[in-house]
Parts: sequence; C-alpha cells; structure tokens
Amino acid sequence: MPVSYINEIAKHAGREATVRGWLRHKRGGGKIAFLVVRDGTGDIQAVVSKAVVGDEAFALAGKLTQESSLLLTGTVQADARALGGYELHVSRLEVVQLVADEFPIQPKEHGTGFLMEHRHLWLRSHRQEAVLRIRHEIIRACRNFFDDRGFILADTPIFTPNACEGTTTLFETDYFGEKAYLTQSGQLYNEATAAAFGKVYCFGPTFRAEKSKTRRHLMEFWMVEPEIAFAELADVMALAEEFLAHIVARVLEHRREELKALERDVKKLEAIVPPFPRLTYAEAVAVLQKKGNPIQPGDDFGGDEETILSNEFDRPVIVHRYPAALKAFYMQNDPENPDLALCMDVLAPEGYGEIIGGGQRIHERDKLLARLHAHHLPEDAFKWYLDLRAFGSVPHAGFGMGIERAVAWICGIEHVRETIPFPRMLYKIYP
Amino acid sequence: MPVSYINEIAKHAGREATVRGWLRHKRGGGKIAFLVVRDGTGDIQAVVSKAVVGDEAFALAGKLTQESSLLLTGTVQADARALGGYELHVSRLEVVQLVADEFPIQPKEHGTGFLMEHRHLWLRSHRQEAVLRIRHEIIRACRNFFDDRGFILADTPIFTPNACEGTTTLFETDYFGEKAYLTQSGQLYNEATAAAFGKVYCFGPTFRAEKSKTRRHLMEFWMVEPEIAFAELADVMALAEEFLAHIVARVLEHRREELKALERDVKKLEAIVPPFPRLTYAEAVAVLQKKGNPIQPGDDFGGDEETILSNEFDRPVIVHRYPAALKAFYMQNDPENPDLALCMDVLAPEGYGEIIGGGQRIHERDKLLARLHAHHLPEDAFKWYLDLRAFGSVPHAGFGMGIERAVAWICGIEHVRETIPFPRMLYKIYP
Repeated sequence: MPVSYINEIAKHAGREATVRGWLRHKRGGGKIAFLVVRDGTGDIQAVVSKAVVGDEAFALAGKLTQESSLLLTGTVQADARALGGYELHVSRLEVVQLVADEFPIQPKEHGTGFLMEHRHLWLRSHRQEAVLRIRHEIIRACRNFFDDRGFILADTPIFTPNACEGTTTLFETDYFGEKAYLTQSGQLYNEATAAAFGKVYCFGPTFRAEKSKTRRHLMEFWMVEPEIAFAELADVMALAEEFLAHIVARVLEHRREELKALERDVKKLEAIVPPFPRLTYAEAVAVLQKKGNPIQPGDDFGGDEETILSNEFDRPVIVHRYPAALKAFYMQNDPENPDLALCMDVLAPEGYGEIIGGGQRIHERDKLLARLHAHHLPEDAFKWYLDLRAFGSVPHAGFGMGIERAVAWICGIEHVRETIPFPRMLYKIYP
Repeated sequence: MPVSYINEIAKHAGREATVRGWLRHKRGGGKIAFLVVRDGTGDIQAVVSKAVVGDEAFALAGKLTQESSLLLTGTVQADARALGGYELHVSRLEVVQLVADEFPIQPKEHGTGFLMEHRHLWLRSHRQEAVLRIRHEIIRACRNFFDDRGFILADTPIFTPNACEGTTTLFETDYFGEKAYLTQSGQLYNEATAAAFGKVYCFGPTFRAEKSKTRRHLMEFWMVEPEIAFAELADVMALAEEFLAHIVARVLEHRREELKALERDVKKLEAIVPPFPRLTYAEAVAVLQKKGNPIQPGDDFGGDEETILSNEFDRPVIVHRYPAALKAFYMQNDPENPDLALCMDVLAPEGYGEIIGGGQRIHERDKLLARLHAHHLPEDAFKWYLDLRAFGSVPHAGFGMGIERAVAWICGIEHVRETIPFPRMLYKIYP
C-alpha cells in the first residue's frame, strides 16, 4: 500500500493509500466515527465505518485519545466540503501508540508559563506550525536573495575573543583557560570576508545577555548580516528596502494558508513595496515630539519611540543619520556633519519597531584607532580588525536583520517567543 | 560609467566599464604595465599604457603594492588568451588606498601558525576563496535537498540545560545564575519538532570542548541534521546516500573552476553515485583485521580505523549496527540482536573518515527511562524528552553531517581548519 503524506494525498485520489500521523480530535460514535489526523504536512479527516472495519477496529477507534499515533489505510475520496479537499475512507486502522494521559495542550486558554514549559508539545498546534513554516520561508527567502545576487555565505565565528559593543551583555565561557565570548554580531568578521569576496553574508545565532523581559527580546536569536566592499550608506539603505520587499513577497507567494491560519491581515503585507519612507534622525525626533513624546535631540529611541514611529507608516521606515554618540565605535561619520553617524535602522510597521540596523563603517585606520581608544577597547584584540584598514581599505557598509523580529512582524504576532522553536528568555532555558 | 563585477565583465565587452578591486600583482614597466586585479568575484588583467593614461597615472600604477585598492576604468576587450577571457584596457586609474606595508601573505611558504594568525588576510588567496565558495555551494545544496523534499527547517537551541552525550566535552556558560551548556547536536530537539512537523532539519553551529588536535576536529563546527517521524534505520541510510550524492553533484555542476583551482581529482567525485557499500560493524571489523589492524570485536573505531575503511572504497561506505555499548543512550537496539544499535556512520572515501552519524532512536518510554538511569543522566532535565514517548510516540530516525568534514573531503584538502572562515581550534581563538 503506498504511504502518503497528507499534503500529497491528491496524488492518490480514488485509490487506496496509507496515512501515518497523530489524532487531533474525533467525533461520532454508534456506527461511524470521524478522525481528524495530522502528520506535520497537513490535516485530513478519516471516516471509520463499523460496517467496513469490523467491531474490534471500530471499538479501538472509539478509544483513541488526542495525539495517539496511528496508521490509517483507506480510499482517498475528493470532497469539496472536506478539510483539504479529500477524505480518507478507512479500511484498516493500526494504532502505534494509544496515549494514556490527557494531552497537556488543550483548546482552552493556558497561561504563557505553562505553554512555554510544554513548548515541545505546544509546537504541534496549528498556530505554532503556521508560525514556524513562515519562519522557514523567511529564512529561505533571505538566503536566496543574497545567493541570487552573488553574495558569498561566509559563516562568522560564535566564539570571539573580543566584544563588538561592550562586555556587559555578553555570555562568557572558558575556552581552554582563556575567556571567550559568544558573538553578538558577525559584522566585524564580515568586514574581513567582504574584503576577500566583495559581497558576503553570514547567517547564524547571536547572543545577548540582556536582562530584558520585553516582547522584542530573546537571549539567543538568529541574524542575517550582509556586508559589501565599495559600498556606502545609500547602497545598503536601498539593499535593505529591496530585501524586505523580497521576503514579504515570498511569504505572500508561498505561505498564504499559514497567514490565514494566523488571521494575518495580508492587505498590510501587500503594501510592503518600495519605496520605503526615509527619515533622518532629526526628522524622526520632530515626528515624535509632534506626537507628544518627550524625546530631546540627542536621546536614543527606546521601545516607545520605535512603536510610535513604526505606527506612522504603512511600510517599513528607514531612519538614518543618528547622533554618532549613540552608536557603536566602528560607525563612519557623516562628512556633512561629523556629529552624525552614517547609519540606519529600519522599523517595521504596525508598531513592530526595529528589525534592521546597519550602516557604513570607518575605513580609515587612524580614525578607527582613535575610536577604539575613546571607547576603551583593547587595541591588541582588534589588531586584525585594524589590519583591514591597512591592506587595501575601501568604503564598506552592511546591515543585520533579526530573524525573530521579522517573523513576529510578518506573522502579525505579539511576542518573539513564538517565532523560534525553543526560545531562550530571561531565566528560561527549558525545554 | 557602469561599474562591473569581474565575473560579469562579459556584459560590457567592447565597451567601457569600471572595475573596483585589489591588486594581486603587477608586471611590466617602461611604457606598459599589467595589473592583475581581484574583486572577490574573479580576477582580471588590466593593461595600463603610458601613452593612454599619461605620465602621472602611469607612475602611480608603477607604485602600486599588493592589495592596494583601486578603481580602474577602461575598455573591456575579449582575448582568448587572457585570464577569464577578457582584458581591461585602462583609460583611468584611481587609487583608493596605496598599501604602505608588505602584504603579510606572500606566495612563499608560510607556517600554519603564521597563516592562522593572519586568517583575515589569508582568506584573500585563490585557494581559500575556492574552498569557501565550495563550502557555500555545499551548504546551499544541503538546504535545497531538504527544502525540496518537504522538510521543515526548525532551528534547535544553542543553550541547553542538559547534555546530550555527557558533560566532559561541553562548553559551559552562566545563564542568569543557572548553568547552561552549548549544544553538541540538535538531535534531541529535532525529535520534538519531527513529532510536530513530520520531517525536519536543523542547521547551525555545534560545539565540543575536546582536547583534540587532529586534522578532523574543530571546537566550533556546523552540522545539518534531518529527523523523520515514522522512519527506521534503513530509511535514513537511504536518505544519507541520496543526500551525499546530491551534494557532490551540485558542487560538480556549479564549482568546477574552484575544484580545478584546488587541483581536485574530479574523477573521484564523479564516482560518488549510489549505491554506496554497506557494511555491518562486524564486517567492518573483519576488513580491518584482514588489513592487519589490531581491532577486536567491541572496540570503537578511531581515526586510524576510519582511514583504513574509507580507503577501501571509491564511494562513501555506510557502517551500521555498532555495539550498543559504544553508542549514545538514545539509540534503538536491533531487534535481531539487542547488543547492537540501529545506528550508522558514513565514512567518506580517500581516507577522510566519518562525516555522517545517525540512526534510529528509542521510542519506548520505559526503555528510554532505563537508559537514562543506566547512563546516570538527570531524569528531570529530560522530562520533556520522555514526554515525546508518552504522547504519540512513533519509530523515528535521523542523522547529522558535519559540514567542515564534508567540505574537506569534497575539496580534497588535508585539514578542516581551512574549511571555515575563522576556525576555532585548541587554544586558538584569534582572529
């Protein structure tokens, strides 16, 4: 008997096939039972008739509990009213495991703490499945975007001897007697590989030991970071715009069903087309003040400010040229006003806030050295990074996008904790 | 003037274009100079004639040092004898940075320690570029293989509260007052996501704090790990075979030039087609003994044994059903002989040894619990893992492939340290 995944059941229409999966729920009784079964690729309704399967198998079907694993063999019948367009008329039922206990995740409301403790089982719900399929689509779209444009994937290290943006938010480990830190960004290493390969990206987990308990923060999150030699701020602003539009378009193209399951307003995603609005930091401050926000020029944006700005537009907004004092040591200055950095943040709409940060890097060795000293960073650890400015230095720029924030925005969900299979949050590391 | 990457220069044949890059080397003098320039996508020879560019620019060309960064504008001329089929006849030369110091990496032989200290610059060599382009191709082939077969990418966590295979080789960190370990494998979490999505894979960095200094070991390495619900050992043996053949075929299809740069014997790669030889552990021991190896039944294979076995065949060899005592606690037993595990290793040919390990997992809760106790593992930390056996447990299997070992084999290079941009080795964490 051919075994079929549920999403390929149409291939067997009118014929017999075996489906292997788990029981979502059942109804009926008496002489006929309806089993809704999932196999990870989709759901199907199976019709079990006492007259067909016999008393014993029918009684067994009646005993099936949620998440019991089973094999169902039967005829695949097209039925426009059925879930997925097909029903399975069962001739044989084989139980792999009859679940003895009540499945912990019930349709009733559970508290977040309970759901997080049972994340390994919670993943089986429709909603989590939809989010994680969209996550996969987003990651695939990111990679294809850069691959198709000739970027080389150059994985940057997780263990780093030095800190990119200070050590207070770093996870530390003992590396054979030396201190090593878990990376917060692949950027510095990207600058080395961009000088070798021209256009590069890295894509991996990054870590911040921030004592933050907000809907936008995870301790462990994935970042995709492109970096380009012979590029300036304007180039990466244009690239970020094209990149985000591409990702949203791919999700709309391939994951309509999942967006529907999440009750996502797709109209709002269909609006994500270039050009995106661009605001200087000064313009953004003016917008915020007009909205009654108490921000003063020179202040950094927090969650509140990002939320206000990102609610102002129907597309991602690019805020550029922040005060240099607010930004990392490696940021290039604006030649028109050295107090500003040639940097940008991209804020997702609907209040989601920052999903991309980037800009142009200092390419002059003396200037970089002065910045290292001003930031009290150890020159020794950055020797290799300074070397990049001594051997064929060129203007270069790049950005990083946090995957989980992008997933939360595109899925339209409140909290990043649902955007990754096993979120790592403050004090939470199980399962 | 249109700017062109060197690998797209053919588009500008017969016309003017600007190339941006770095000087590899130069020759000539007097009235004409030849500059070989790289931009990360390829190399091109530029012809600078004093009569065309004038005395000042010609003198500047004469001063150019290795890795100086520059912009060259000129006419793109097809020339069958030229590197890449085209030459640039320069009309304008603009130097971005004239490198003052001798570039540390010279064609002469450097010691490994020196090259590793200068990894950020060593990456610019032809050989490193070829290896890392092939690495990118392999990673892309892995992802496409699983994506095209309906596997869902489900990232597994880096921070884990419990150890998959003992704690002696784990990197530890403080996670807000708790101990956390860096993952050695995503497998346990893959088992949870496979029960949710049917077919999954994870792809990320993994860590082993092993005091090993061999050509096959890194402290930080990337693994791709598929896991399938309703699958047995035979299924994943077949999948691994198809998977490896696919990867090698994609590299042969897209990276011939890079293989040539590495002087790789492509005949050996062209032989990598299914079926692969399959040996039981017992058969493998017999082969080793016949070769004079002192191994006894029950002994594990080390580097020497892997090298001998992998030299025996022109294709990867699948060794299966090792003694259960040699393998991890979660391995399913062979019902035909409970002393054996339903596991497999795939050894790459030409002496490269193990690149894949996998097998079928215990799906019975009681049996798994007994194994946890026998291995002195904390039941509490594995509560969620035991849950997978209580709520719809099914036979399931999977494997993991180490990316760096696969890259070393396919590139035909001796040591894994060249297969990742910034290798992390024993006591080596810089740059």
